Amino acid sequence: MAIRALVWGENVHEQESPVVAELYPDGMHNQIARLLGEEGGVETRTAVLQDPEHGLREQVLAETDVLVWWGHAAHGAVEDEIVERVARHVWEGMGLILLHSAHFSKIFKRLMGTPCALKWREAGERERLWVVNPRHPIAAGLGEYFELENEEMYGEPFSVPEPLETVFISWFQGGEVFRSGLTYRRGAGNIFYFRPGHETYPTYHDATVGKVLRNAVKWAHNPQARYPGVHDAPNVPVEAALEPIEERGGKLHEAGQEGFR
Amino acid sequence: MAIRALVWGENVHEQESPVVAELYPDGMHNQIARLLGEEGGVETRTAVLQDPEHGLREQVLAETDVLVWWGHAAHGAVEDEIVERVARHVWEGMGLILLHSAHFSKIFKRLMGTPCALKWREAGERERLWVVNPRHPIAAGLGEYFELENEEMYGEPFSVPEPLETVFISWFQGGEVFRSGLTYRRGAGNIFYFRPGHETYPTYHDATVGKVLRNAVKWAHNPQARYPGVHDAPNVPVEAALEPIEERGGKLHEAGQEGFR
Amino acid sequence: MAIRALVWGENVHEQESPVVAELYPDGMHNQIARLLGEEGGVETRTAVLQDPEHGLREQVLAETDVLVWWGHAAHGAVEDEIVERVARHVWEGMGLILLHSAHFSKIFKRLMGTPCALKWREAGERERLWVVNPRHPIAAGLGEYFELENEEMYGEPFSVPEPLETVFISWFQGGEVFRSGLTYRRGAGNIFYFRPGHETYPTYHDATVGKVLRNAVKWAHNPQARYPGVHDAPNVPVEAALEPIEERGGKLHEAGQEGFR
Amino acid sequence: MAIRALVWGENVHEQESPVVAELYPDGMHNQIARLLGEEGGVETRTAVLQDPEHGLREQVLAETDVLVWWGHAAHGAVEDEIVERVARHVWEGMGLILLHSAHFSKIFKRLMGTPCALKWREAGERERLWVVNPRHPIAAGLGEYFELENEEMYGEPFSVPEPLETVFISWFQGGEVFRSGLTYRRGAGNIFYFRPGHETYPTYHDATVGKVLRNAVKWAHNPQARYPGVHDAPNVPVEAALEPIEERGGKLHEAGQEGFR
Repeated sequence: MAIRALVWGENVHEQESPVVAELYPDGMHNQIARLLGEEGGVETRTAVLQDPEHGLREQVLAETDVLVWWGHAAHGAVEDEIVERVARHVWEGMGLILLHSAHFSKIFKRLMGTPCALKWREAGERERLWVVNPRHPIAAGLGEYFELENEEMYGEPFSVPEPLETVFISWFQGGEVFRSGLTYRRGAGNIFYFRPGHETYPTYHDATVGKVLRNAVKWAHNPQARYPGVHDAPNVPVEAALEPIEERGGKLHEAGQEGFR
Repeated sequence: MAIRALVWGENVHEQESPVVAELYPDGMHNQIARLLGEEGGVETRTAVLQDPEHGLREQVLAETDVLVWWGHAAHGAVEDEIVERVARHVWEGMGLILLHSAHFSKIFKRLMGTPCALKWREAGERERLWVVNPRHPIAAGLGEYFELENEEMYGEPFSVPEPLETVFISWFQGGEVFRSGLTYRRGAGNIFYFRPGHETYPTYHDATVGKVLRNAVKWAHNPQARYPGVHDAPNVPVEAALEPIEERGGKLHEAGQEGFR
Repeated sequence: MAIRALVWGENVHEQESPVVAELYPDGMHNQIARLLGEEGGVETRTAVLQDPEHGLREQVLAETDVLVWWGHAAHGAVEDEIVERVARHVWEGMGLILLHSAHFSKIFKRLMGTPCALKWREAGERERLWVVNPRHPIAAGLGEYFELENEEMYGEPFSVPEPLETVFISWFQGGEVFRSGLTYRRGAGNIFYFRPGHETYPTYHDATVGKVLRNAVKWAHNPQARYPGVHDAPNVPVEAALEPIEERGGKLHEAGQEGFR
Repeated sequence: MAIRALVWGENVHEQESPVVAELYPDGMHNQIARLLGEEGGVETRTAVLQDPEHGLREQVLAETDVLVWWGHAAHGAVEDEIVERVARHVWEGMGLILLHSAHFSKIFKRLMGTPCALKWREAGERERLWVVNPRHPIAAGLGEYFELENEEMYGEPFSVPEPLETVFISWFQGGEVFRSGLTYRRGAGNIFYFRPGHETYPTYHDATVGKVLRNAVKWAHNPQARYPGVHDAPNVPVEAALEPIEERGGKLHEAGQEGFR
């Protein structure tokens, strides 16, 4: 059964910047969706900031295996309530792939619990991404490295938590390095941050980038049913204990009472 | 120079529950502070929810090396703005120790980016904490395990991110297990979650618990100056690149312009 | 295409202990292989210590996706050269699953770089394995916990490196806990340690254990081609540098010379 | 009390290569020892390959808090028995710092359980080490990066296990990147791999390198007593169980018998 990917695009620069509009006449989200669909096995829909509820209604998320997120200028325009909704789905098992400037998206900062800051330079310089974890599923089919002749520079320090695994590290022509492919697991959800993708360069027309995105969607997909229990803090009554015990000592809660949150 | 610890107590149960008031007549925060001060090298102050700004004014945090947090019934009463202030100080290098029911505190959930849920039972049962990382600084001076004859049970799954290191795992009489000592680093801040400490039991009168808390404060202390740069996303102008490069390709930002956040 | 699993059994206790022979009349390896084959998708062969080269000839390993290892009394009888051969295949991408007393196998200690010691008690006590990482692929289809009414106790501290992820933690009736499901990646190879499986109890007749083993084989399988480059330390000649550089400073190696190992 | 550091040098190139002899007339080990002693708090001795038992007698290691290792041409000349002895001390709590070409030392490969391979080029090119974990103890007092104008290039992929934390990542002039500062914990021992230090360049005359080495020694130092229990696999007799249990089921071991190893 095909993996159900949802590509979310901010869809602002495409409307406002002629440079971006020329590169991505159908919008970046549609071009990313096209890359995901290129080899089959992934069924792709798109949603944009301007859609009602940003295109991220409960039902849409419930039918999404992996959400791919590109945003930049309008991070602040994403409703907090919808950010919480997306976070909830990630914790319950929806995969999430954050692209480039999504390092500063509300959803990424929400899930990382850190500032997610970095340095940057928009100079169209050369980026070379080294595979530091060969044969990782996200690097499947890649060589030792791949290059993007024109990219924005992102430089360390990148204030994110230590990842589960580092997959890519970038070399930049101007002298910086960056951890460009990082995996995390939050609740039952697999998360991948992938650095490249500045809107003024043809990054999402690059075949290797397409390969990485498809790999990432497959890696992030958790085929098991959602896990709503990730939020629960159930009381286990004394009489239901797996081993027989007797109640002792002082008590704060009445029997069967809910805990504080 | 002594480590400057600040013990934050919710100070609600001590006022409302006779059981708790009897165990902790001066409040839990004062008893925890007493434990921290027992061997010297730690200078301890306290703050409570009821203080102006919860006792967590900017200046107070700026002079705090390690913040120790106990809360339960009134997580929701902690102002969001102050939670963000505490998070900022952690990212900049303040240590943070979360005790027991602080698993559901706003600050812990904020820094973890996950629900931090668990199962529980208030039956005064036996807890045995096994040291799974012997000679870890937080386990200094401990034997293979220590016991608390009466504790609340917390059971897995505990929905937190994979820790940097697991220090303690608890065995409960009623049949559950729990990862009771977990370390994290977020930005420049060291974070330790320590499970025991239910308000209706004399846990903070236990000598080994005191030892662990003192160890944890020392471990969490980052003696380096705060790191305000953790939040910054500076632009590096082309002409300031460490290696000479020439600007190429399309541009979105004017020279010297700030990035989007 | 089916995953090619190879179950390696020491096959000593089955020959020498009537208790074990009665539980596993065809040998433990054959019963484990049976479990792996129960739902299709896994093609299973077996090999035993007593086979020529312990049944682990180069060609056999080259055709193995995941090796499952059970050993106990005869760890020392496994040839060092064959241990190195297995390690090489793991680094190149072969999955490896270590069962129970294989914590002290040469191959596990070789790959962990630590003593891999633990405490133990053979009392047929109750073990309850808690899933601490719900919806992890290895826990697919499991509830919150599962029980084995009679098992050997293994107790912490378990002297292994901090794992990539902890999947299971065991509660034991006699008062101990143990990290019973641990994942590692070494080179391109996925490694899973799974605690249960004492030879004098019917553990490998348990349906949930079978489920875990099948899950683990699927998780450990790296579908990409082997990665022989994991061992290589190639010299990159100056003239082949990806960015033009000129040789400077003192030199130890002649052009094209091999490095020291 | 001062930390007792032991600097181990292979001491081969200094004798055979005029380039190296000129840079390090007293041997690299003595220059490294000098760096360690520059700010006080560290008491330094040295040992070389050519010493009896390579200068690593049991008593010497027992009195060593942190061992610093530089080797290259003669990895193979280090006795296996002594490698095991060093590993034992690391597991029991001795810190270990591996410098540059020590990535291929027997002791590093022994503790990592992986090939520890990488690519290299001896061209005296520029290396810029970025601090990716600001305010980590090993990066104390450093700026955002530091440069070594002439260094050997080491390039990814570096076949080591995922580290506990990544502290430095290097940018190389010729186009490669490398994880140049990696922390591990094996047993009770803290391990740090630090990339720079090619023998034909004046790396160990660099002030920042000296600072990193001193920081690393302090970080790696475990002030607690050695932990010989890391190797032990004690049997816990049924009658000594912490919770009362009764023996059930089949048995392999007689009461009080040792386990298999």
